[in-house]
Amino acid sequence: MPEYNLAPFAHLAEQFERLPGIGAKTANKLAYFMLSLPEEDAQKFADAIVDARKKIHYCKICCNLTDKDICSICADPKRDKSIICVVEDVRDVMALEKTQEFFVSYHVLHGILSPMRGILPDMIKIKELLARLKDDTVKEVVMATDATIEGEATAMYISKLVKPLGIKVTRLAYGLPVGGDLEYADEVTLTRAIQGRHEL
Amino acid sequence: MPEYNLAPFAHLAEQFERLPGIGAKTANKLAYFMLSLPEEDAQKFADAIVDARKKIHYCKICCNLTDKDICSICADPKRDKSIICVVEDVRDVMALEKTQEFFVSYHVLHGILSPMRGILPDMIKIKELLARLKDDTVKEVVMATDATIEGEATAMYISKLVKPLGIKVTRLAYGLPVGGDLEYADEVTLTRAIQGRHEL
Repeated sequence: MPEYNLAPFAHLAEQFERLPGIGAKTANKLAYFMLSLPEEDAQKFADAIVDARKKIHYCKICCNLTDKDICSICADPKRDKSIICVVEDVRDVMALEKTQEFFVSYHVLHGILSPMRGILPDMIKIKELLARLKDDTVKEVVMATDATIEGEATAMYISKLVKPLGIKVTRLAYGLPVGGDLEYADEVTLTRAIQGRHEL
Repeated sequence: MPEYNLAPFAHLAEQFERLPGIGAKTANKLAYFMLSLPEEDAQKFADAIVDARKKIHYCKICCNLTDKDICSICADPKRDKSIICVVEDVRDVMALEKTQEFFVSYHVLHGILSPMRGILPDMIKIKELLARLKDDTVKEVVMATDATIEGEATAMYISKLVKPLGIKVTRLAYGLPVGGDLEYADEVTLTRAIQGRHEL
């Protein structure tokens, strides 16, 4: 048996290889790095995984991640509960929160509709969104899914379910990225930027 | 507190960020992926880390990684013990073993001399190498450190310690990479390839 088949090492490298964007070479490098850590630090790393996985679950209201029953955004009385911003995943919440501009509530779909990849409406948190619209609190649903074909299709699908409830459905604006060079913008973005032009 | 400061999540992301080549964004992505795993799988991942770190240590002879006293290469009676191939780290052993051409023993330095980064001779496994040369078993030491300035310097440094013991010291050949296009080779490599030319 060649030494690089050392079972616990190979097993650890295999685990790293499961992570998104990590190939066989990087997995080896990471496993090797892990062995070079003091035993205490490796234990801390392992504990952080188990701890996070055990304590963190979906918020009962918005499906954001939380270690309580209800996430800190839903629990915040200063948030505008009449607007729900619908996003694909938790990292989108993080991105929007960083703007410090949009003090609304969220709804995390945990996925995006994709018939190609077999992701159907009942596999993402659409039912949970509709349940939140039953009382009259919500006045606007902002579709903040990605500006991709799948993100667009998901926004359209959900808007068709929400509009009949008499709730306004909006979509994030398309246009030039701030600081972006006009000549490098693709035609589709440019077309959208022209369509969405506003008076100064 | 914004939700992305969720303590166990932030702590896990921090741990991932310690890994080489992993930045803040990737660390977030990996931590998020870990939360999306079934709890059982997250536990397995954590166990693999602790298990590997606990069971794997340096071979008493060659400083390769092993879960026994002596690694499987040193324990192999078919290996040519008269040749020691000196490498920087364990991944180099893996790479050389993959050639299936070089059935010798190894010595893993676990680092490379670098005064710039403060890595001095007593911080890598040079003492352990010299101790192995005391009896008359070893006839040749092959310096297989990287073809970088630091690798070259380390090879020179060690060869100066080994040669006085009457042991042959060799260095891996420089030249064109197999399958490489001559016109794309840099001048230094090409010069070395010319110097190292051999009769056909």
